[in-house]
Amino acid sequence: MTDLIRMSAVAAARRLARRELSAELYVRAFLERIDARHEEVHAFAYLGREQAIARARALDQGPCVGLLHGLPFGVKDMFDTCDMPTQGGSRIYTGHTTPVDAACVALARHAGGIVLGKTVTTELATFPPNETRHPHNSAHTPGGSSSGSVAAVADWQLPLATGTQTLGSTVRPAAYCGVIGYKPTYNLIPKRGVWATSDTLDTVGLFGKTVPDVALFAAGILGCTELQVEETVSAPRVGLCRTFEWGHATPEMQSALASAGERLAAAGAKVCEVTLPDTFADMLQAQITVGTFEMGRTLSDEYLRHGDLMRPQLHERCALAWNVSLADYHHALAVGRRARALLPEVFRDIDVLLAPAATGEAPQGLDWTGDPVMNQVWSFLHTPCVSIPAERGPHGLPLGLQVIGQLDDDQRTLRAAHWIQQRMAYQPFSALDLA
Amino acid sequence: MTDLIRMSAVAAARRLARRELSAELYVRAFLERIDARHEEVHAFAYLGREQAIARARALDQGPCVGLLHGLPFGVKDMFDTCDMPTQGGSRIYTGHTTPVDAACVALARHAGGIVLGKTVTTELATFPPNETRHPHNSAHTPGGSSSGSVAAVADWQLPLATGTQTLGSTVRPAAYCGVIGYKPTYNLIPKRGVWATSDTLDTVGLFGKTVPDVALFAAGILGCTELQVEETVSAPRVGLCRTFEWGHATPEMQSALASAGERLAAAGAKVCEVTLPDTFADMLQAQITVGTFEMGRTLSDEYLRHGDLMRPQLHERCALAWNVSLADYHHALAVGRRARALLPEVFRDIDVLLAPAATGEAPQGLDWTGDPVMNQVWSFLHTPCVSIPAERGPHGLPLGLQVIGQLDDDQRTLRAAHWIQQRMAYQPFSALDLA
Repeated sequence: MTDLIRMSAVAAARRLARRELSAELYVRAFLERIDARHEEVHAFAYLGREQAIARARALDQGPCVGLLHGLPFGVKDMFDTCDMPTQGGSRIYTGHTTPVDAACVALARHAGGIVLGKTVTTELATFPPNETRHPHNSAHTPGGSSSGSVAAVADWQLPLATGTQTLGSTVRPAAYCGVIGYKPTYNLIPKRGVWATSDTLDTVGLFGKTVPDVALFAAGILGCTELQVEETVSAPRVGLCRTFEWGHATPEMQSALASAGERLAAAGAKVCEVTLPDTFADMLQAQITVGTFEMGRTLSDEYLRHGDLMRPQLHERCALAWNVSLADYHHALAVGRRARALLPEVFRDIDVLLAPAATGEAPQGLDWTGDPVMNQVWSFLHTPCVSIPAERGPHGLPLGLQVIGQLDDDQRTLRAAHWIQQRMAYQPFSALDLA
Repeated sequence: MTDLIRMSAVAAARRLARRELSAELYVRAFLERIDARHEEVHAFAYLGREQAIARARALDQGPCVGLLHGLPFGVKDMFDTCDMPTQGGSRIYTGHTTPVDAACVALARHAGGIVLGKTVTTELATFPPNETRHPHNSAHTPGGSSSGSVAAVADWQLPLATGTQTLGSTVRPAAYCGVIGYKPTYNLIPKRGVWATSDTLDTVGLFGKTVPDVALFAAGILGCTELQVEETVSAPRVGLCRTFEWGHATPEMQSALASAGERLAAAGAKVCEVTLPDTFADMLQAQITVGTFEMGRTLSDEYLRHGDLMRPQLHERCALAWNVSLADYHHALAVGRRARALLPEVFRDIDVLLAPAATGEAPQGLDWTGDPVMNQVWSFLHTPCVSIPAERGPHGLPLGLQVIGQLDDDQRTLRAAHWIQQRMAYQPFSALDLA
């Protein structure tokens, strides 16, 4: 079944729609891969084997229902699903079920998508990791909080998966595992039924192996065909951006950005250096203030009634919420508004920024999921970001860059990310059948 | 028990904290009122009589736990509660329960608040009304979507209640029923566990009989004592604002704003006329576009799997979501950003705007909940708004104005609203024991 799981989602969707491929066969190929690999990677919190096969058969017998007809996808275990438990990686929610689908899950199913299972999240999409390992080296974290979604896509266990990003939970793990992580503009994909941690920061994210794959997923969910990305797109204007967090990047990540700039310029992109306005220097601390104030309050039911079932690391973080004054919170929000107001100036002569998606390769060890410092500012700014693999680091693991666009400019950002990704030195899915 | 239910929440909280009043006695006073009035008003979807009494007894036996110690409150039936059903005013959710509390309910309980019951909402907080009637004239709507919360507070059945606002579901019904409706800055009160209809617009709102009461409620929920409003505050600078929706206001509402301006100036406020920038003329249509795009997608699980259990009016509205193109949605969001960027200029020389909170009195009939046109723009702008009773209209029902503040300027907005409310011609709760 190797060939099937190695198709791009776009190629598979085309064949599924034409009935050159049966949804049941396609689903079974991934189930076989999961069976072979679960013991090693632990990407799934729940596998919906029977539901997925039944749904695939039903789709095979009816008309093509939408853009995602017959495509299996994974759902981060922070999204309600009506037919599978939702446990949020937390002992508080062991065995928890709901009779509803998160809105984006309902929309994806309506477009023909098939939920294959619930993927492992860190505890309530925060810091304490759960059992997922990096599929390319099990001594390393896959990143988080969307650990299972990203590991499964990287390991050919799923073509597509959902995630969330509050600090860096979509872009960073995608970078670590060498897949595409797409964090849309804030609020573009509806959050109903997705468990919140911070209303100002939370964003639904998507994973796939190629940019056109995640664009297809978004287009299918939203019912907006115009979000799809064609195979051939024109060269973007790219602003290389060292950001105020540049000092956190490893030397190899720093050189990866420089090399990427050279490759893109050589390939015909207009490339320049972009320095962010001074206001952006305050954004990291402002994001931390906003996230801290909101997280403890948002997780208050868990913290106040079930604190004993939280891991101490999360419990302590929740307690910090009450150390942030309302004045500090408002000051931090004001910093965010000021920086957001400067984005038109930042993007005046470019289509997208290119910056590190993480500080470096996926760190060794399974006791944390890595540093989101390269992502926090962009989560707070609400801009669309697409993580793309760029090089291999010294441990042989991927180094990822993020393509950042202007607010609501998701279409341009996805197109630019596709053009850029195709020109990077490292192509982890070059064996994909894209036909 | 008349005296007890006629206390302000601030006065009751003071007596409860000092043990001059028992929480059980206080809760029982409201239960008695509800028993006498439920047949007429139908404010409650579920009454948590036994849970409330048990909780009150426990509070009476322990130390004072927080700002809301012993204060009963109602919870709009769009907020999850761990011990009472949450049915969203929808046949889809008949008998629906969850094991969790919405974050703000958990926070209010933690501060000593007692959930007395779930209040009636329109269907999924949208258009189709449910069974609540105006407490002052049962042939009229109390407004919606937070119908039960506002009717119960107006009718002395509750001192405090929660609501939500997407178009005008907090400010408008408060105006119709002559209570205080406080819509905080977007995202100030956490939305976890509150059923969404539009991520860009949804805001948790609060109801009470006085401005210091709703301010106390907010302070208790957020654990921010600085949100409380003292009895004596200084005179604000007020901008009378006819808004671009002025033509929708009845003549008596138009004259109410003018009279209010005269009263405030005579009482020592600095009052001026404020004309909004031209960009605001596009905001109403932009809000409609954003709300339409998002609502059908946000309610997709209900719409797609249970459409037959939706009332046709809501079903049709959900279907409209797919008529709005992504380009139109993005254009509308851009209008919102432009207008929000102009707010510093609008508020340069004033503390708050004063504008109609509704088009006029609560309309006759129970088949709709009135026109939110005076609220939609401010919901989209994300500004704090406080609805206050100002006059009586020709049918003897309240006419309400809204005090609108700059983003994140909730403290100043609440203080100004308190000063203004005390100087209005109509004081529906003047018999309150405020001692």
